[in-house]
Amino acid sequence: MGETSGVSLPLEIKEKPLVGIIMGSDSDLPVMSVGANILKKFGVPFEVTIVSAHRTPHRMSKYAIEASERGLKCIIAGAGGAAHLPGMVAAMTPLPVIGVPVKGSSLDGVDSLHSIVQMPRGIPVATVAINNSTNAALLAVRILGAIDHKWLNEMNQYMINMESEVLTKVERLELVGYENY
Amino acid sequence: MGETSGVSLPLEIKEKPLVGIIMGSDSDLPVMSVGANILKKFGVPFEVTIVSAHRTPHRMSKYAIEASERGLKCIIAGAGGAAHLPGMVAAMTPLPVIGVPVKGSSLDGVDSLHSIVQMPRGIPVATVAINNSTNAALLAVRILGAIDHKWLNEMNQYMINMESEVLTKVERLELVGYENY
Amino acid sequence: MGETSGVSLPLEIKEKPLVGIIMGSDSDLPVMSVGANILKKFGVPFEVTIVSAHRTPHRMSKYAIEASERGLKCIIAGAGGAAHLPGMVAAMTPLPVIGVPVKGSSLDGVDSLHSIVQMPRGIPVATVAINNSTNAALLAVRILGAIDHKWLNEMNQYMINMESEVLTKVERLELVGYENY
Amino acid sequence: MGETSGVSLPLEIKEKPLVGIIMGSDSDLPVMSVGANILKKFGVPFEVTIVSAHRTPHRMSKYAIEASERGLKCIIAGAGGAAHLPGMVAAMTPLPVIGVPVKGSSLDGVDSLHSIVQMPRGIPVATVAINNSTNAALLAVRILGAIDHKWLNEMNQYMINMESEVLTKVERLELVGYENY
Amino acid sequence: MGETSGVSLPLEIKEKPLVGIIMGSDSDLPVMSVGANILKKFGVPFEVTIVSAHRTPHRMSKYAIEASERGLKCIIAGAGGAAHLPGMVAAMTPLPVIGVPVKGSSLDGVDSLHSIVQMPRGIPVATVAINNSTNAALLAVRILGAIDHKWLNEMNQYMINMESEVLTKVERLELVGYENY
Amino acid sequence: MGETSGVSLPLEIKEKPLVGIIMGSDSDLPVMSVGANILKKFGVPFEVTIVSAHRTPHRMSKYAIEASERGLKCIIAGAGGAAHLPGMVAAMTPLPVIGVPVKGSSLDGVDSLHSIVQMPRGIPVATVAINNSTNAALLAVRILGAIDHKWLNEMNQYMINMESEVLTKVERLELVGYENY
Amino acid sequence: MGETSGVSLPLEIKEKPLVGIIMGSDSDLPVMSVGANILKKFGVPFEVTIVSAHRTPHRMSKYAIEASERGLKCIIAGAGGAAHLPGMVAAMTPLPVIGVPVKGSSLDGVDSLHSIVQMPRGIPVATVAINNSTNAALLAVRILGAIDHKWLNEMNQYMINMESEVLTKVERLELVGYENY
Amino acid sequence: MGETSGVSLPLEIKEKPLVGIIMGSDSDLPVMSVGANILKKFGVPFEVTIVSAHRTPHRMSKYAIEASERGLKCIIAGAGGAAHLPGMVAAMTPLPVIGVPVKGSSLDGVDSLHSIVQMPRGIPVATVAINNSTNAALLAVRILGAIDHKWLNEMNQYMINMESEVLTKVERLELVGYENY
Repeated sequence: MGETSGVSLPLEIKEKPLVGIIMGSDSDLPVMSVGANILKKFGVPFEVTIVSAHRTPHRMSKYAIEASERGLKCIIAGAGGAAHLPGMVAAMTPLPVIGVPVKGSSLDGVDSLHSIVQMPRGIPVATVAINNSTNAALLAVRILGAIDHKWLNEMNQYMINMESEVLTKVERLELVGYENY
Repeated sequence: MGETSGVSLPLEIKEKPLVGIIMGSDSDLPVMSVGANILKKFGVPFEVTIVSAHRTPHRMSKYAIEASERGLKCIIAGAGGAAHLPGMVAAMTPLPVIGVPVKGSSLDGVDSLHSIVQMPRGIPVATVAINNSTNAALLAVRILGAIDHKWLNEMNQYMINMESEVLTKVERLELVGYENY
Repeated sequence: MGETSGVSLPLEIKEKPLVGIIMGSDSDLPVMSVGANILKKFGVPFEVTIVSAHRTPHRMSKYAIEASERGLKCIIAGAGGAAHLPGMVAAMTPLPVIGVPVKGSSLDGVDSLHSIVQMPRGIPVATVAINNSTNAALLAVRILGAIDHKWLNEMNQYMINMESEVLTKVERLELVGYENY
Repeated sequence: MGETSGVSLPLEIKEKPLVGIIMGSDSDLPVMSVGANILKKFGVPFEVTIVSAHRTPHRMSKYAIEASERGLKCIIAGAGGAAHLPGMVAAMTPLPVIGVPVKGSSLDGVDSLHSIVQMPRGIPVATVAINNSTNAALLAVRILGAIDHKWLNEMNQYMINMESEVLTKVERLELVGYENY
Repeated sequence: MGETSGVSLPLEIKEKPLVGIIMGSDSDLPVMSVGANILKKFGVPFEVTIVSAHRTPHRMSKYAIEASERGLKCIIAGAGGAAHLPGMVAAMTPLPVIGVPVKGSSLDGVDSLHSIVQMPRGIPVATVAINNSTNAALLAVRILGAIDHKWLNEMNQYMINMESEVLTKVERLELVGYENY
Repeated sequence: MGETSGVSLPLEIKEKPLVGIIMGSDSDLPVMSVGANILKKFGVPFEVTIVSAHRTPHRMSKYAIEASERGLKCIIAGAGGAAHLPGMVAAMTPLPVIGVPVKGSSLDGVDSLHSIVQMPRGIPVATVAINNSTNAALLAVRILGAIDHKWLNEMNQYMINMESEVLTKVERLELVGYENY
Repeated sequence: MGETSGVSLPLEIKEKPLVGIIMGSDSDLPVMSVGANILKKFGVPFEVTIVSAHRTPHRMSKYAIEASERGLKCIIAGAGGAAHLPGMVAAMTPLPVIGVPVKGSSLDGVDSLHSIVQMPRGIPVATVAINNSTNAALLAVRILGAIDHKWLNEMNQYMINMESEVLTKVERLELVGYENY
Repeated sequence: MGETSGVSLPLEIKEKPLVGIIMGSDSDLPVMSVGANILKKFGVPFEVTIVSAHRTPHRMSKYAIEASERGLKCIIAGAGGAAHLPGMVAAMTPLPVIGVPVKGSSLDGVDSLHSIVQMPRGIPVATVAINNSTNAALLAVRILGAIDHKWLNEMNQYMINMESEVLTKVERLELVGYENY
């Protein structure tokens, strides 16, 4: 996979990715691309690829083992059902791994949540809400804030913007009344 | 691990194991040894060892990849919490893998059950009831029956014995009445 | 049911089925036929029929009792709700029985899963994921591998193919970027 | 089992049982004997025995098929885990079958409840609360009320007595205050 | 409500209802009318009405208290959410009460199931599967069998018919193959 | 927010709101406006606004701290997922806070329910059913009944009306029969 | 029950109770008396009694119907399993009813929670956490604050005291370190 | 709280804490101190204190708002039941917040898990397994690895040590056999 990145910018300005977004299947892409867009908006260099714990176990080992050396600071892994990808990657890298439980066709995502969050003592996975790759990306930005304070500033700004958006809605609600909103 | 087997017989009569019993932690041994005893009673050659998906991922890969070549016909894997061992082993061997969800200190085994049974299309794990390594062992014997019909005969006999045991209890219950049973 | 098989080949080349696929109701067929197609692709001789634990209990007993003698090596049983078929068949045959929990109109398949996987000590059912008859079929192929190593080779090939398919998708994702995938 | 009854009265006054109490294992007896005692208190002739769906499937068929002819009016069946006994018996008798979900060592009785209550259209099981064989027995008495109005009168009296017991506690609570109760 | 019945036959041939079908809201009618149709098919005289535990508590008490005297032999009560109707009616009549948990817009019927099946010792409700008024009606017929053996014969016939229907499907499946079914 | 109210009456007759309806996001408005309409029907002065625990924590503190002084008697707070709004507001006001668990896109509202109802000892939230802002509003009216008995009278009337509506449906059902209802 | 109160003060100074604490069984008293003690500490006049929805339905109706007239401002009702008491009382009084789900011997209180919180539109129950009668009492005090502002002041003070207690613990933790705490 | 730290070293060598461990109540200390010990073992400067979302909301705001400025790089927050602490702190700091769901006396920790992990889009909490403060601490170390590569090296070493410990157990198991282990 080497230097490739999911960001479709001209090659010359591509930066070395800091965050790797991986998923067990391309069917997880609609869920995971939302998080990718967040990283893009923040200007965080990242890569997006498919790594299946069950169908490509060797690729998974390779990805996990090389991640830190390749300069990644954090990995976001999404998977559904008996979701082993985040935990197995975390077992083979010292980097923080963020797990996104992807909701499947039954059990409403509870199976993925359990398979990702209930890791035994020794190997942590930073689990976010079911299907919530947005929060996975935001968590990655917060983690990057440990290296470079600019990410914390950007996060602060992001939070202020969210607040403003709500306040705008508050005003509109007051103006038009709840029945015409 | 080579030729070793969990059965404590003199070396010369040790047979090559047909079934491998593995578990994620030695804390799972009280649950898993019940199944080992069942295999012993049936005379099935087996081995017992610890293979942690999260703490010894490389050992796990090696175990899974070599299993078929070493002559194993079936693997029984027990694990708790975000139980990735059975599914990950199944991803690296063509052998049937039987998963035993081990109950942890919270969630009553539901997390292990979900992590083992809800495997995505492509890689099956034959899941048995929570903590029920007895049934894992009996399933292994039934699978061995495909090679050698003697195991099916033994299983038939085992089932007849179970039936007899119940019938003996029925008689005793009739004799003494439910209040004195 | 005798020689019949679900495979719609000309009679003369029909082989004696090695795997029996049964289901509690014809409403389970859309779920179970996916697994049948897998067996077909592998070239495993199989039969497909309806056996209801609750509506045809005598047929169920007969099917289970005769299965081994008829040459079946393994039974795949799918059922929904209070799904008793897999467990009851397992109680009357020494063969390995694979249970497929079929999702009904409420409880999201949890009731079927509990009714199939939580078998008491003595009678195992090899349970796969909810609605996942694909994995039931793949497990049957793995079990057949105990008799004839060719099935393990085929399973190995199947796993390699799955891996290749993922790698092709990886390449495409790199090429077009996650936003255009 | 014939004429036998769980009630330890002298043989000559034993009546033909109207209610059959069966359970999957003698380990269910502590739960089920509570219900037996209720029937005894009401003077309902009954029998108590062990019938395992999984370990004695043929005995189960026989019990179910002969029940109506033997004069039973109702069957109470208790079982745990993947509890198939009540539903399978109901599939082989036209009598009303009352199911008691017995709580096992994991899943808090939810598995038994699902396996008993979620019967498919066609074969009903009258399910009561987890471990609540008292209510199973009381339901049997209410059902017998359809034949003989005296049972309804007894049930009315039972309900009045329960009410009185509560009222006595109410008085005591008023008298001594909640802190000294 | 007196002599009225849900069966739209000419008045002169209306029989006194043996079974009362009640429901908490007219929104439960699509679920409960399926059971009513079953009773109609069996020729069981019945009535259908709305009785809300929460919106018409006094009507509920009256209905429950008078039910036995009015000649009802059994009451079928359907309700959703915090479903108190079946249990409250059972608390005020000695008749057997059958509870149908109706699935609401959230929790998939689990709330109704818990509210109906988990009755405390003393007052039983015969609970059937979520939304399964068919089984409630069939259970009523089985209960009526205690008064008049003809209902057991009809139930036997019903069960034989169900078996035949399945066997017809079996034949068709064999004939056309699972792919063309 | 001051004097504003969600009720779109001419300014001069706007009364000081007694009940504040707040919600974590404008996406909760379809659920919460149903409750607002109930308050309107009862003639209870109220206000409707957006207060996000996570996106506007300072606004939330301000709202909670000033609520009692502004004359509010009760706060209705709706939120979904990890729903912290009702509990956090309750931690900063001595007023009764009513929590409405709003159902999100996964977990069927169970996560919201747990996050709202399972408050630790010390800070209560009066929780109503998932998505049931109607009941939140009715509870607010009942609470206002402590100040002014007229609200209890109105509630009595409301309950009598509900009863009448059911009785009208009962009559119609009797008249047309369940099949033509 | 009349003038009686659970508070064991000399008769002459007993005030007319403002809050009624009721429970389905005296086995709920250990849970409910904790809340009674809270009311006592606040000086709220209250009464404690047993009212069973299922065993004393007529007493329950009487209690609910007379509550408002007797001067109660709010009712706290605790019950376990299929807990119908809070909802049924709420159906027969215009007063706010606070429900305490009491945890039984199985299902960990989920059944009580569902039976209390999931009330249909029209009749609200203010539900608190499982077994948390403390919060039920605190909610009652907050509701009384609508009549008399002194209760809000007392609640404010209570909240300040809780804060102080935590801060004292904070200091002690700082002083001794977490290992010696 | 200023410069204080939970580590009981002589004041002069106390370093400015990089990680803040907070918990909702001192009753959470037995769970959370396990994680503190991990940080100590790694030599990560940290502080331990009590911050209750519900009982000390102002202290919580202050703690969250000042955390980044005080030099903290990451906050570990443990709480039980309707666990609002981690999410509320995350709403007021740009730092990564790690949530530890603490198991309470009912619901087996599921309520805490839902309240922590199911955060809405915008504010992430890095959730670990129920009661697993060990993994929270290990995740904190991995996050610190973004600033200083030495933490990644230490984590690598920690993982190698875990592997060795397992391998030692493997050897012992082989040596003594599973029955004497």
